[in-house]
Amino acid sequence: MGKGGKSHQEGEENMAAWLVDLNTLKIQPFKLPPLGPHDVRVRMKAVGICGSDVHFLKTLRLADFVVKEPMVIGHECAGIIEEIGSEVKNLVPGDRVALEPGIGCWRCDLCKEGRYNICPDMKFFATPPVHGSLARQVVHPADLCFKLPDNLSLEEGAMCEPLSVAVHACRRANIGPETNVLVMGAGPIGLVTLLAARAFGAPRIVIVDVDDYRLSVANNLGADGVVKVSTNMQDIPEEVERICEVMGAVGVHVTFDCAGFNKTMSTALSATRAGGKVCLVGLGHNEMTVPLTPAAARIDCREVDIIGIFRYKNTWPLCIELLRSGKIDVKPLITHRFGFSQKEVEEAFETSARGGDAIKVMFNL
Amino acid sequence: MGKGGKSHQEGEENMAAWLVDLNTLKIQPFKLPPLGPHDVRVRMKAVGICGSDVHFLKTLRLADFVVKEPMVIGHECAGIIEEIGSEVKNLVPGDRVALEPGIGCWRCDLCKEGRYNICPDMKFFATPPVHGSLARQVVHPADLCFKLPDNLSLEEGAMCEPLSVAVHACRRANIGPETNVLVMGAGPIGLVTLLAARAFGAPRIVIVDVDDYRLSVANNLGADGVVKVSTNMQDIPEEVERICEVMGAVGVHVTFDCAGFNKTMSTALSATRAGGKVCLVGLGHNEMTVPLTPAAARIDCREVDIIGIFRYKNTWPLCIELLRSGKIDVKPLITHRFGFSQKEVEEAFETSARGGDAIKVMFNL
Amino acid sequence: MGKGGKSHQEGEENMAAWLVDLNTLKIQPFKLPPLGPHDVRVRMKAVGICGSDVHFLKTLRLADFVVKEPMVIGHECAGIIEEIGSEVKNLVPGDRVALEPGIGCWRCDLCKEGRYNICPDMKFFATPPVHGSLARQVVHPADLCFKLPDNLSLEEGAMCEPLSVAVHACRRANIGPETNVLVMGAGPIGLVTLLAARAFGAPRIVIVDVDDYRLSVANNLGADGVVKVSTNMQDIPEEVERICEVMGAVGVHVTFDCAGFNKTMSTALSATRAGGKVCLVGLGHNEMTVPLTPAAARIDCREVDIIGIFRYKNTWPLCIELLRSGKIDVKPLITHRFGFSQKEVEEAFETSARGGDAIKVMFNL
Amino acid sequence: MGKGGKSHQEGEENMAAWLVDLNTLKIQPFKLPPLGPHDVRVRMKAVGICGSDVHFLKTLRLADFVVKEPMVIGHECAGIIEEIGSEVKNLVPGDRVALEPGIGCWRCDLCKEGRYNICPDMKFFATPPVHGSLARQVVHPADLCFKLPDNLSLEEGAMCEPLSVAVHACRRANIGPETNVLVMGAGPIGLVTLLAARAFGAPRIVIVDVDDYRLSVANNLGADGVVKVSTNMQDIPEEVERICEVMGAVGVHVTFDCAGFNKTMSTALSATRAGGKVCLVGLGHNEMTVPLTPAAARIDCREVDIIGIFRYKNTWPLCIELLRSGKIDVKPLITHRFGFSQKEVEEAFETSARGGDAIKVMFNL
Repeated sequence: MGKGGKSHQEGEENMAAWLVDLNTLKIQPFKLPPLGPHDVRVRMKAVGICGSDVHFLKTLRLADFVVKEPMVIGHECAGIIEEIGSEVKNLVPGDRVALEPGIGCWRCDLCKEGRYNICPDMKFFATPPVHGSLARQVVHPADLCFKLPDNLSLEEGAMCEPLSVAVHACRRANIGPETNVLVMGAGPIGLVTLLAARAFGAPRIVIVDVDDYRLSVANNLGADGVVKVSTNMQDIPEEVERICEVMGAVGVHVTFDCAGFNKTMSTALSATRAGGKVCLVGLGHNEMTVPLTPAAARIDCREVDIIGIFRYKNTWPLCIELLRSGKIDVKPLITHRFGFSQKEVEEAFETSARGGDAIKVMFNL
Repeated sequence: MGKGGKSHQEGEENMAAWLVDLNTLKIQPFKLPPLGPHDVRVRMKAVGICGSDVHFLKTLRLADFVVKEPMVIGHECAGIIEEIGSEVKNLVPGDRVALEPGIGCWRCDLCKEGRYNICPDMKFFATPPVHGSLARQVVHPADLCFKLPDNLSLEEGAMCEPLSVAVHACRRANIGPETNVLVMGAGPIGLVTLLAARAFGAPRIVIVDVDDYRLSVANNLGADGVVKVSTNMQDIPEEVERICEVMGAVGVHVTFDCAGFNKTMSTALSATRAGGKVCLVGLGHNEMTVPLTPAAARIDCREVDIIGIFRYKNTWPLCIELLRSGKIDVKPLITHRFGFSQKEVEEAFETSARGGDAIKVMFNL
Repeated sequence: MGKGGKSHQEGEENMAAWLVDLNTLKIQPFKLPPLGPHDVRVRMKAVGICGSDVHFLKTLRLADFVVKEPMVIGHECAGIIEEIGSEVKNLVPGDRVALEPGIGCWRCDLCKEGRYNICPDMKFFATPPVHGSLARQVVHPADLCFKLPDNLSLEEGAMCEPLSVAVHACRRANIGPETNVLVMGAGPIGLVTLLAARAFGAPRIVIVDVDDYRLSVANNLGADGVVKVSTNMQDIPEEVERICEVMGAVGVHVTFDCAGFNKTMSTALSATRAGGKVCLVGLGHNEMTVPLTPAAARIDCREVDIIGIFRYKNTWPLCIELLRSGKIDVKPLITHRFGFSQKEVEEAFETSARGGDAIKVMFNL
Repeated sequence: MGKGGKSHQEGEENMAAWLVDLNTLKIQPFKLPPLGPHDVRVRMKAVGICGSDVHFLKTLRLADFVVKEPMVIGHECAGIIEEIGSEVKNLVPGDRVALEPGIGCWRCDLCKEGRYNICPDMKFFATPPVHGSLARQVVHPADLCFKLPDNLSLEEGAMCEPLSVAVHACRRANIGPETNVLVMGAGPIGLVTLLAARAFGAPRIVIVDVDDYRLSVANNLGADGVVKVSTNMQDIPEEVERICEVMGAVGVHVTFDCAGFNKTMSTALSATRAGGKVCLVGLGHNEMTVPLTPAAARIDCREVDIIGIFRYKNTWPLCIELLRSGKIDVKPLITHRFGFSQKEVEEAFETSARGGDAIKVMFNL
């Protein structure tokens, strides 16, 4: 039994939002696993909805992962420590923490080489068959719970998760004060990528979307230029021209494709200068076929590299520091808030799925 | 006027092989430019035919480059110094040298950062509008002429050019003693890539082709495994399985696509393990559309990077050292030799274009 | 003859500040070399005094370089284009430019690999036997003259030189938003390193000096903490403790030794955390003997790397961008200004040599 | 209780070599810890003696580590699996394995970033207060036990430990087919560094020592050149000249100081070319003071980096592959063998301490 100011009361049943079937979420009891010596029990306070959560709800699958059994959903989260395992030194009950959702195996070569994000045995919140964190309480390893400084809210703590995707992408692309950045897509991931690239020092950031509202948000968040585009492949050459004009003479060093469509990737390849990089941050749908033939897009003659980005690793301390110091402000991205009743959970997911003015939908538990 | 044991004789007319029209090569006079203080005049002795030479002959274009005026062809070459410019210190007449064909501008940011191979103002033998080196004599910067040690032939000197492509690819992919390598295509570039990857320490190299003869050559050159494949996209999953079986449990860390077809690239993406790299060394044709959707090929979830490879930089000293020390033997790749008459030039190009058992076709001038 | 709005007038004699003997500078005529096709002629407007200029004046040597013949001094400079060579495309007379002082050979392997700053044949302003730029006019390669945007003064243009040292050090040390930085020495180079590290995203920067005034300047420039130290080796352990306290729990990832004394280097090695880097930016004197034995300083057990920093490469565009965007403001560093008479030149060097409140001494020509 | 062909018999007492006091080793019972689900129990068959073992015996300390309680010694080892934990998948009883001696915490930032070798909480065989492996049996995590292929002996398995130091150094220094290597010291670590650098492709390796016998061993192991030196600091300039002559015109890209004396480090700094690296692989004694002042040794003007090397990480699979494929043969390094009686243990350590013709002393248990 661990050390905690308030022990897990017998009478309290832990409730969680279960994905029980296609388009069906139910709040149901969720039995906590025993607290290991290096674990903590956390009372969840803020949980955000991610596009992948919505995708699982609508299709019961994502990439290779298929939901075969009912599963607790949610993975962007922060809460308050209630109990700590016997060996935990860095946390005490009452600490406000942001949770990194993935647990590496630490036995495979990828984990040991520091690339635990692509560990084949990773246990990740709400990636089947592992349960998620949209629950009153969860048990999690203490070293994946990062204490929040006083000037950060628990919601900002939960935002460390999407921000981590952007930070990992910026690290992989080696963004710095001489990297002009193009972001394809002004959805939640595109917008945090804009914020992260700025914090990494990118001197000039242009962002592209099909939606005026999202571009206006990007503008307000400090984009140096925005370009509205169509969904029509034929428009690529003209749009690339406009993007390059907005970017200026030096050109695009790194493009983050945060949309992941044939067209965004094709545009990315054409718009990026020789010697640059295109980072595929996420696939928008499950079908992408990229023509590498237009002269401007040829990655061989121009030594453009395409970098695959999957989740993140070792990002929470940096995210917390960027938020604490004010270099990044994610609060404007939280557009909708819901409580944790059956009805509100359903509404929240509908809101997130609808998109429009909903950027980040957050539960306050 | 430079320093040379034998000056450029008035009476001797310099002859070269000109690409004058579609499928038409003519040996015609080629006036040499004046010898600058840092230049040398070289009597060509060995010139190889590259796939790009044949492509220009058959189509008058390659990627973005279009032959609009008659142009001397050829760029894989070695010869003997006849005259040196007033400031040349590292060479003397009589030295046997291999020639690096591309001259960077050394004023743009790419040149200054050490990526002169993608300099937009590069002057490269036989890339329009710059003349090539299939000529009795050429004038070239001394710092791009690399002295051959006594134990290397001039033909081996000419082979430094294709070998450079492989060496540059191995460097970009960071090949070493823990990189299992897959090579798509057992043509001349695939075969030198096999040799270079071995010299860089790759512990296990598997090579794939549609042609039995080429696979047998690869076998003789030391491939650890060969896999015969079809040209049918439907066969990819089964072929990937066979490739992985031949490679063994650790899997493929780096794939070099030396063929550049939709199918080879798709196979490459599926066969490479998480965290690995796929290097696009050359486009086989001018149309490539790569599906990034099959689960096994997803570059995002698996953080597989796609690396574009264009020509080379700073490779001649290393190529010469690898040949000198015997770590690489390119002589088995030279399958056909021709003299420098009008008839032989035509025959040589036909032989190279026909493929089959012709790997490297070499002129002895 | 080049293209210029105003040609080099016959009647005007070009004057320059010559280092003619120990402690002796004389303004004397300085004949310009002919203008090559890729050169420009620049009318100097702002020239700063560097510690190395003073060192040459006081000792006629620096490291390996010895002044054997009278030499024009000065290398931190900016001016206005008066005439351009026949092939110059990127500049026109009247352009305000900052000058990068070193000309690589572009024929050696180091130049070709992008490390032209350590080219053994570099021609660098005021490094014997090459003349410097404290002159009415100089001739220089156009690709080393970088156009200043309208919002930057010529003095700021001249400041690109010392700033370049800092930018190069930050690049070599890979400074970014997760690198806590310690700077040893708050002289001109220490202060620009503080500014550059901030612009590269360093979250926490602590600076150390023996002088209260310099530390107060560092404070005003935005240091997160300053630590006053002695010149006594015995104080190292206690001072390291104070430095670590001021830095905070995460510790020092990178230390820049901008002073270059036995004590600063020893302190740097002890204060830097395991896996970190110590960059030796400059030697304060010509004798440094570093004990690698105290447990806290052992570079082997802690895998601390020591990085040698020499001048810079490819830094002007970034420096100009950092100044233009306001991410760095070097104006507070310019504490003294002088005209270009014999008397003022002498006074200016005395002022710079005296140190004290003189940080950067600038000539306005 | 784990799964094993032969369980840990009640009647058998596990014996180990304990360092009980200065210069005093005693074979005494050593109680095994319980077998965890991811652990294995290994019957030791081959254990080598390392210089650090001898150092502990002679002084009861090494760097920061002090032996305060009796401790089992030994950490270069291989054996046969006797029992496996309930979750172990990759091994079965009877497997012959080489053991990696250090267990990272996998909770600190260094472990998670893939630098577990400098984890502050590492538990490492025979580094106080952790017991070593010169014992009949040990319990160890399964993921740190690497199966040996049939063509490798258990002694070769034990040699993976010293070889790992060399492999890690070669990785950190980025050794490849264009890195000329200088090795200071032809002791056991210098010799395995020679072998590893060769396997990483180093084209030219020169090795330096004070001892003729050791140099002759280096010669037999394939050094391209050997240079005998004195222990006198005054001889450095002349010795550097000889080293450079033996190395040849291109010079030394990377020096490994495997001796760790003032003189070897000073020689290393002078002999390494501009832009190169010096790796400090181990400190020969506990006092090293390196003068950075001789012009030839200045690390700043020449951008020579000094790299600290501590132990290794993720090296066993590569070592096993290099041995399996015959790229490295460590058998000639094993010069003396002993059994596991009290008398033989004492003799073995004396033999190792005496040096001379004893390179690697090995126990066969």
